[in-house]
Amino acid sequence: MLNRVRSAVAHLVSSGGAPPPRPKSPDLPNATSAPPAAAPEAPRSPPARAGSGSGAPAKAVEARASFSRPTFLQLSPGGLRRADDHAGRAVQSPPDTGRRLPWSTGYAEVINAGKSRHNEDQACCEVVYVEGRRSVMGVPRDPSRGQGLCFYYWGLFDGHAGGGAAEMASRLLHRHIREQLKDLVEILQDPSPPPLCLPSTPGTPGSSDPSHLVGPQSCWSTQKEVTHESLVVGAIENAFQLMDEQMARERRGHQVEGGCCALVVVYLLGKVYVANAGDSRAIIVRNGEIIPMSREFTPETERQRLQLLGFLKPELLGGEFTHLEFPRRVQPKELGQRMLYRDQNMTGWAYKKIELEDLRFPLVCGEGKKARVMATIGVTRGLGDHNLKVCSSNLPIKPFLSCFPEVRVYDLTQYEHCPDDVLVLGTDGLWDVTSDCEVAATVDRVLSAYEPNDPSRYTALAQALVLGARGTPRDRGWRLPNNKLGSGDDISVFVIPLGGPGSYS
Amino acid sequence: MLNRVRSAVAHLVSSGGAPPPRPKSPDLPNATSAPPAAAPEAPRSPPARAGSGSGAPAKAVEARASFSRPTFLQLSPGGLRRADDHAGRAVQSPPDTGRRLPWSTGYAEVINAGKSRHNEDQACCEVVYVEGRRSVMGVPRDPSRGQGLCFYYWGLFDGHAGGGAAEMASRLLHRHIREQLKDLVEILQDPSPPPLCLPSTPGTPGSSDPSHLVGPQSCWSTQKEVTHESLVVGAIENAFQLMDEQMARERRGHQVEGGCCALVVVYLLGKVYVANAGDSRAIIVRNGEIIPMSREFTPETERQRLQLLGFLKPELLGGEFTHLEFPRRVQPKELGQRMLYRDQNMTGWAYKKIELEDLRFPLVCGEGKKARVMATIGVTRGLGDHNLKVCSSNLPIKPFLSCFPEVRVYDLTQYEHCPDDVLVLGTDGLWDVTSDCEVAATVDRVLSAYEPNDPSRYTALAQALVLGARGTPRDRGWRLPNNKLGSGDDISVFVIPLGGPGSYS
Repeated sequence: MLNRVRSAVAHLVSSGGAPPPRPKSPDLPNATSAPPAAAPEAPRSPPARAGSGSGAPAKAVEARASFSRPTFLQLSPGGLRRADDHAGRAVQSPPDTGRRLPWSTGYAEVINAGKSRHNEDQACCEVVYVEGRRSVMGVPRDPSRGQGLCFYYWGLFDGHAGGGAAEMASRLLHRHIREQLKDLVEILQDPSPPPLCLPSTPGTPGSSDPSHLVGPQSCWSTQKEVTHESLVVGAIENAFQLMDEQMARERRGHQVEGGCCALVVVYLLGKVYVANAGDSRAIIVRNGEIIPMSREFTPETERQRLQLLGFLKPELLGGEFTHLEFPRRVQPKELGQRMLYRDQNMTGWAYKKIELEDLRFPLVCGEGKKARVMATIGVTRGLGDHNLKVCSSNLPIKPFLSCFPEVRVYDLTQYEHCPDDVLVLGTDGLWDVTSDCEVAATVDRVLSAYEPNDPSRYTALAQALVLGARGTPRDRGWRLPNNKLGSGDDISVFVIPLGGPGSYS
Repeated sequence: MLNRVRSAVAHLVSSGGAPPPRPKSPDLPNATSAPPAAAPEAPRSPPARAGSGSGAPAKAVEARASFSRPTFLQLSPGGLRRADDHAGRAVQSPPDTGRRLPWSTGYAEVINAGKSRHNEDQACCEVVYVEGRRSVMGVPRDPSRGQGLCFYYWGLFDGHAGGGAAEMASRLLHRHIREQLKDLVEILQDPSPPPLCLPSTPGTPGSSDPSHLVGPQSCWSTQKEVTHESLVVGAIENAFQLMDEQMARERRGHQVEGGCCALVVVYLLGKVYVANAGDSRAIIVRNGEIIPMSREFTPETERQRLQLLGFLKPELLGGEFTHLEFPRRVQPKELGQRMLYRDQNMTGWAYKKIELEDLRFPLVCGEGKKARVMATIGVTRGLGDHNLKVCSSNLPIKPFLSCFPEVRVYDLTQYEHCPDDVLVLGTDGLWDVTSDCEVAATVDRVLSAYEPNDPSRYTALAQALVLGARGTPRDRGWRLPNNKLGSGDDISVFVIPLGGPGSYS
């Protein structure tokens, strides 16, 4: 079954076609075929073209063949070809000339060794201006408060089963975040606690009376304290959900085939918000110390959540899967014997008598990088995957995948950072072969070779991290200096310096 | 609604009746009316007497009136009366003469200040011998391996809405653990990895062939590694579930009214297993350092699990509750306005337009000690509560309560412990008014006043902790030295020394 599923996924991945040229847009990444155009303001794509699935097969093939790299790489057509070359696997970074990324952020990426036709990672780095909605609090706007807010944004999107979801998320997720923050512009700039309730119609007289907002009619003795920080967390969480819903609506457009992990960083009003849905990872290296800023969401780390869902909604298992976990596949001849198992409530193991339904395929199986949900997918959070089904069945995987990120917050103002303190983001291509400690050692080694005020040092560090994970080609594949296999996956790395952001905000 | 629920619970609690004397049993705690007799071996109570609910009202009142204190307190009838006196709140400990608790464990308790008729905390401390089942592995037993295993056991049970569940758990939970360990006696003493599969019939020829246990027919490339430790964890987890199921079966017997939090410690083969279901707490104080060994399970800490269950199984909310959380109760006149909310996926807050169904009572409401599930109960894990319903409705609370503990493991052999290193267990009566740091300071202060080899020092410490949480009676209630209110709850504390257990195992 696993093999059948693998071939199905491989088929999804391997659809081809020659890349036609397309016009560039400063707001859209380089691409070799037109993605669905985004309206300049709202994070909306046009409705799916009628018949795009069956009526226009040639167009569909073209669309599937599209590939693009982040705009900020400023790739020429020749550069785009080199970035797409599985044999050379040249490391790509923004050019050393011209405009730098905000905060002198370093970035590097490399394509996989043949695992998929194109590099399915995508990246985005933007400064986003949020204009407040008029008078959300129902009172005339205080002109002394700024006109809006700026946030800095970095995103890594690791696609699977096609590059569409990652490409779409890299174009639009920060716009969803901006939309969610629009209502909060005034509130976040007001040092008093956020209002618990807002009037329905902005500016309606009467509804501006603040007394009803926290009125004494409350039947609870207290009301919860809600922080400004938790509003930003909520905005990011909802932006992920809205992005995912948009992918679901537009999934007939072939750009939205597949799914992606998403790891994004938002810097707003002195705090760094790291939101992760998938198996990418973020760490801060501060004065040599490692501070984890995310955790990975995989069939192993989310086993109990998946099992609980299968237990509460057995129809999602379609009579084909069991929500129980066994340490290996149960054999029909073992019926009546006792095997170790774990259910949704257990972290330990116990023996149970094997019954007929235990012979079903387990919802979660395999270990480490080979762990799979329903023998199909190895990550349990992310965007997209609305079309993904268990092979040879009509069972959708999506209910087990969650689009919600875990958001961790780091207060930049609580510590005086030096130029060597960095936040490193990487897709699993980096972390599969590189430990946190090895990354910290590389941070130390590379940055100490550059002057503290040399802005190119962070790009050099990102390149060193990508090279260290890719290795060099030898007789049997890409190898690391210790002769272990390098990562054959797409590898993408952001290095965000924490030492000078104050001057940007 | 809250008040209605409170009165209902108060009614359950306040049923009365004079305590008739009863014979003592060495295996059963002191009690003033007969609890259901337990079979000497299996953790089974006799089936509920026919008509015990309606046919024998006098008997029912008698049964509800029963109260008992732990056997190891060796209370005389007069001592039992003093232990039950809300006015004096005398601290109780095992007598300084006679047999000490294993490991010289210290224990102290005090009754509440009138919150409930009796002390609803219970405690148990036992050395339990586990005789292995014959040849579970299907091969003739190796006579060189010991005849069985011993484990040391400590349990604190904090009852609510009646003392029945706590009393039953204190009598029987360790027997359920023993039952679960019986199959593991041989396996845990065998240094090789545990077998993944056991034959159905012990000793059946052929099934002893180990090749089929890890046969090459497996369709997975690997099989999971299962540790001995995870088998013990699984045994404890399943014992909690079986204890809870027994309470469900026997809930017609009035001893099993109510529910209880359970915090138990099992010491087995060099490792300490701390299993917690509820809001009791365990910490290790080692060389002055605090090592948390449990976390509390409350409507606040388990908000997302509860909301997910309500979202996936809306029938559990009966059209009366909403799974959404709001920072305060929504008012009907606020319909159409926008209020902050959180759903099962969010840790942050966001605004939503208030719709009709948001006016329902929230599944989780209140803060801190006042947080409640369905306005009824303030803990979300524990044993019992099978009869608990939302007031004025037929909605059961139980599906939201989980009987499964979180089990943490501490390897005693990894560190050389001194006589001042202790594991402190306390019910919430202790922790409501005492921080971890204050406990650590009391550990240091009291133990340093005794010789390291004085076995009474741990009882003195337990007493100091209970006294420090209770305070002294002053004009307005029980007060701490800083004039803050002491705990009016039942308070129970075990102090388990870690410095010398090797000599007991």
